[in-house]
Amino acid sequence: MTATALQFKDWMGQVQAQMESALSHYLPASTHIPERLHDAMRYSVLDGGKRVRPLLVFAAGQLVDAEPQRLQAVGAAVEMIHAYSLVHDDMPPMDNDVLRRGKPTVHIAFGEATALLAGDALQTAAFDVLTASTLADQPQDQLKMVNILARASGSLGMCGGQGIDLYSVGQALTLPELEHMHILKTGALIRAAVLLGSYCGTPLSDEQRTDLDHYAKCIGLAFQVVDDILDCEADSATLGKTAGKDAANNKPTYVALLGMKGAKQKAEELKQAAFTALASFGEKAQLLHALAGYIVDRKY
Amino acid sequence: MTATALQFKDWMGQVQAQMESALSHYLPASTHIPERLHDAMRYSVLDGGKRVRPLLVFAAGQLVDAEPQRLQAVGAAVEMIHAYSLVHDDMPPMDNDVLRRGKPTVHIAFGEATALLAGDALQTAAFDVLTASTLADQPQDQLKMVNILARASGSLGMCGGQGIDLYSVGQALTLPELEHMHILKTGALIRAAVLLGSYCGTPLSDEQRTDLDHYAKCIGLAFQVVDDILDCEADSATLGKTAGKDAANNKPTYVALLGMKGAKQKAEELKQAAFTALASFGEKAQLLHALAGYIVDRKY
Repeated sequence: MTATALQFKDWMGQVQAQMESALSHYLPASTHIPERLHDAMRYSVLDGGKRVRPLLVFAAGQLVDAEPQRLQAVGAAVEMIHAYSLVHDDMPPMDNDVLRRGKPTVHIAFGEATALLAGDALQTAAFDVLTASTLADQPQDQLKMVNILARASGSLGMCGGQGIDLYSVGQALTLPELEHMHILKTGALIRAAVLLGSYCGTPLSDEQRTDLDHYAKCIGLAFQVVDDILDCEADSATLGKTAGKDAANNKPTYVALLGMKGAKQKAEELKQAAFTALASFGEKAQLLHALAGYIVDRKY
Repeated sequence: MTATALQFKDWMGQVQAQMESALSHYLPASTHIPERLHDAMRYSVLDGGKRVRPLLVFAAGQLVDAEPQRLQAVGAAVEMIHAYSLVHDDMPPMDNDVLRRGKPTVHIAFGEATALLAGDALQTAAFDVLTASTLADQPQDQLKMVNILARASGSLGMCGGQGIDLYSVGQALTLPELEHMHILKTGALIRAAVLLGSYCGTPLSDEQRTDLDHYAKCIGLAFQVVDDILDCEADSATLGKTAGKDAANNKPTYVALLGMKGAKQKAEELKQAAFTALASFGEKAQLLHALAGYIVDRKY
């Protein structure tokens, strides 16, 4: 491993540790009534996950010299949205999955009613954290941040992507249709993570914001392409979740549409486009650059 | 009916009509992908309900001379939170109910997966609407509004109340425990509706805000006491939902704890306390006063 790669790995570890403690701080304690609900919320969020979205929040924060405390709150909000979507997506009416991050899914561990409520309350908690303290220099910008997160998560964003996914099981999607689904299902929240982080410090110019947005869209899509590749190649133990289930469920994937070689080429192209979008930021985009590489080259 | 009662009824009808059109405007169109998800969201929100929470938003808005457009957006946000909670509460892991507002519940009409997603997306839509346009004179106040709604809806508010309800089925609750559950489950969102409406216009003094908050807490609790009474007395056709199910489910209610006479007395006391809290506002609290009467004296 090179010196830079080691530094990046250290940085990731530091952010992940900070986020673990920030999430624990922002989630209500297990001793708070109703205890079982709070246990389930904490179970689903803490001690797991790569924290890709918070890492993106922090990396975008580097661009604008944002205070770490603001980035922790924003990272926690985005991660809570992500966690809630996993809890509900794993439930029997959706994917009916029993394993997540190497642990029983929430409805297996706590029952379906608690899983339903825990997902609901996690979503609310995200908007609570995002408005409980000052996270941008101007309150107007912070309102914009809440709106970006809401738009990215709702029926025209992540939730809409899950709907399209649900209604397309067993159907032959075209590449543009598949792309649209993933832009919503995974891309929208990843894009929001990058944008939100960039609102936490010195404001960017409109031109810079456009460049950053392009970066965010590229890695959002790349993330899903790589997920599809890994779902085909890896085994369940490495992934920490049930592998090969997309193919088993007859779900459309990039690998199914483009072949393994085509999917890998697509991921590489998106990574290069993300790099290009960062060019004008220079040194300040070092972490965003490294994260694009990490997202595409990861093995799980 | 007296002239004042007629005027109040007219005002209610006007707000209900305004809210129907505002909600239709704020919800994504059924033609928008994924259509089935948007159909379900619209089905669960439109053409039904007494719109008690938006009525409270508008009545509180009268106190502060708020613009109707702001109140419509705030009313829509609160009603979306209420609607999402009903969609999820009706699902099989929770109440497993098939009838709501005289129509099949969302999971019966659209399936459980769509009901799960529609509830999720409705919650998000509330926070979208609450941040998509200017709703208070100061952006700082609007951020506060978002935080009030989040706190009222989450695991320390409505969702927590649903959790306590869930975990107390078949258990003997004391009156303070029952009260705590209802303050969270129903009271928190009703209180938020009143507070949010009051942020849409000329700022109140701290003293006025305390009075208004006391009013909001009284009617929030009164609403649930009356719900328990109606659940015992009314039939399903009048209620538009399955009657008597609390007793059938062995759920603790005010009627079970206080008897019918005691429950009615409790509702009356809360109404009087609400009236008293409004005293200092004079004429401007006319609608809030009438609504407290409506909430306690309603027959369904």
